[in-house]
Amino acid sequence: MKTVVITVGKEVLTGKTLNTNLMHIASRLNMIGIEVSRSFVIDDVFEEYTKMLEYTTEELIIFTGGLGPTIDDITRESVYHFYEVETYLDQNVLQTIKGYFDRTNRSMKNTNQKQALFPVNSIVLTNDLGTAPGVYFEAKNQKIVLLPGPPFEMIPMLEQVITILEKDMTDKVYSDGFKLVGTGESYMENELIEFYPKHPMVSIAPYAAAGEIKYVFSSKDPDKVTACMNDFKHKFSQYVYGKLEDTLEGVVVELLRQKQKTVSFAESCTGGLLASQIVNISGSSEVFKESFVTYSNEAKMKHLGVLPTVFESFGAVSNECAYSMVDGLIKTTNADYGISITGIAGPTGGSIEKPVGLVYFGVYANGKIHTYRQVFNGNREIIRKRATIYALNALRKVMLNE
Amino acid sequence: MKTVVITVGKEVLTGKTLNTNLMHIASRLNMIGIEVSRSFVIDDVFEEYTKMLEYTTEELIIFTGGLGPTIDDITRESVYHFYEVETYLDQNVLQTIKGYFDRTNRSMKNTNQKQALFPVNSIVLTNDLGTAPGVYFEAKNQKIVLLPGPPFEMIPMLEQVITILEKDMTDKVYSDGFKLVGTGESYMENELIEFYPKHPMVSIAPYAAAGEIKYVFSSKDPDKVTACMNDFKHKFSQYVYGKLEDTLEGVVVELLRQKQKTVSFAESCTGGLLASQIVNISGSSEVFKESFVTYSNEAKMKHLGVLPTVFESFGAVSNECAYSMVDGLIKTTNADYGISITGIAGPTGGSIEKPVGLVYFGVYANGKIHTYRQVFNGNREIIRKRATIYALNALRKVMLNE
Repeated sequence: MKTVVITVGKEVLTGKTLNTNLMHIASRLNMIGIEVSRSFVIDDVFEEYTKMLEYTTEELIIFTGGLGPTIDDITRESVYHFYEVETYLDQNVLQTIKGYFDRTNRSMKNTNQKQALFPVNSIVLTNDLGTAPGVYFEAKNQKIVLLPGPPFEMIPMLEQVITILEKDMTDKVYSDGFKLVGTGESYMENELIEFYPKHPMVSIAPYAAAGEIKYVFSSKDPDKVTACMNDFKHKFSQYVYGKLEDTLEGVVVELLRQKQKTVSFAESCTGGLLASQIVNISGSSEVFKESFVTYSNEAKMKHLGVLPTVFESFGAVSNECAYSMVDGLIKTTNADYGISITGIAGPTGGSIEKPVGLVYFGVYANGKIHTYRQVFNGNREIIRKRATIYALNALRKVMLNE
Repeated sequence: MKTVVITVGKEVLTGKTLNTNLMHIASRLNMIGIEVSRSFVIDDVFEEYTKMLEYTTEELIIFTGGLGPTIDDITRESVYHFYEVETYLDQNVLQTIKGYFDRTNRSMKNTNQKQALFPVNSIVLTNDLGTAPGVYFEAKNQKIVLLPGPPFEMIPMLEQVITILEKDMTDKVYSDGFKLVGTGESYMENELIEFYPKHPMVSIAPYAAAGEIKYVFSSKDPDKVTACMNDFKHKFSQYVYGKLEDTLEGVVVELLRQKQKTVSFAESCTGGLLASQIVNISGSSEVFKESFVTYSNEAKMKHLGVLPTVFESFGAVSNECAYSMVDGLIKTTNADYGISITGIAGPTGGSIEKPVGLVYFGVYANGKIHTYRQVFNGNREIIRKRATIYALNALRKVMLNE
């Protein structure tokens, strides 16, 4: 069932508010196999409704916003007018709205009365958290849903819509996906040229973010999605770290918990970002006790025992320094695993030999120290973010290969 | 100039990603007096582009997304086709893309070549943080802008678009603004009721984010903006920490540099987030040498000298612990200023006496320790973010009052 989500509101069009309703509605509909094919944001002007509706051929149209009691709230009137529906004033709903005002010791305004106006043969969507009820009705071969704008009212009401829609569904779409790290979109696309034709019934879509890629697999046949994902995982096992709901730091914390091991960090250019990512996982205290941000050479010497000769002979951004940092880290923290990061996040401090983006990593595991060298693109923030992801993935791979 | 923003991507339509690009573009355009009248999200299907463009009468059309190298990325091709533009392969851009791959020791794929294809008489929008350049061109009485989807690439490129658009604007709008911390939008709105009528020619718009608020002042008369902002700053001096281009961490680093002083942190629930914010400021090495993430009680004892009796009598989340942490921090680091943070970020670990969101802070300055207690709303991530902002602002205020 092709669906369009239409958000009404100046706040979204002026950039004051993020359109979180689209995200909630789309992901919830996806779960029952309904695709949102397009989404519009319009201003609360009568002509805008007409223009968009004349243009909309989708089978299901979901509006959010503009159901309030003020004169600016014209979604109900505009949509009813477009579909030329006959309306009635629902006395039960009117009583419910009155009750809502009574409970909060306020008196109902006359303007609230329009909130109880519904098309004949429509289904009222009750709103337990606000005065604006929603409505579901069918007209001109389309299914129309009106929902209020505030997400905390809209989200629970969406479940009533899902129940109505699921009743007459035959054509469902199933979606699932993987998250990958340690590869790039261009590389993957080249690798996938021969993969796509093997799964013609599955739509495969990549979504890249800094240092990570998501691949989403969609099909009307869930078995085809599963088969395609199995193939994909087999081919790209070294990059796939989890499903769509996973985070890299969550996967690392979970691996550590399973092994009942601890980890510690010595961060220079990332400056605490790595520790902070781990701490964002609730329950990380089981595996993470302490960490050092040693931004200066003095701090690297004082807390991690890096020798002055390391700086003199190799510099702070070097394989040797990364090695020495993680070595000292483990000696002082006694953690089971350790990561050190030292690099040039820029924008200054780079040279031809050691460019901006150059980062060295040390990973300690089972008495061994592995070191890595990488050059990352991006601004200071992105380089630091990518270095954090690289470090987490290096630790993950070391743990998996034990 | 009426504008439409068209976002391309299954990820937004499947609810996997929030459309943050619309927010960025709309608020930035608003600052130069350009209104976004509508916004569409479409799937990366050739016919969808044609359908939307046939329907779009706006003078300015901004696309984001679909400029990558993959076969799914068809914004460039589809839009060029619709406007029937003559194209050329830009050799300079091709070299830049090659350079991007060379720097990271990867080889450019053939699929990247299409990223260097531009309409004759177009303006290339350079992308320093990715391989996909953007483009500005005019056709069929419309101005068309194509920008890549990833926000960290798109946002800096948007400035090139602003420069182009401002060139032929006759009716310019001048905008400027302040960033505020330590206050809320509801409180501010109440305070502003009598302020608005004093500046009828200036539009004043608040933009709230977690822990911070921006106020943007716009008018066709720059003097009126200046007068209004002076009034505003006078009234709300205790909250205004900088201009729109400032960051709280940047302001704190600059204050420290002016004073030629250093700072150090002892973080528990924020887990390195505070240090990481400071390190994101280039040149922070002058004022920031080292920091501790002491997530466990053992680490607080070992590195900061917190006594076991503190945990036994008051607990790790207490005024006394925050005091003892910053006291030990300064003794071991000899920094001029110190901040300690200990709290409950949730979702578990809260109680009636010590709820989720409770955070204690210690700030050391000039031989004195100030402590603060706050309860923050939000999820784990938001609570940690708000605690970091609170700590930075506490240090800023202590430094300003010296």
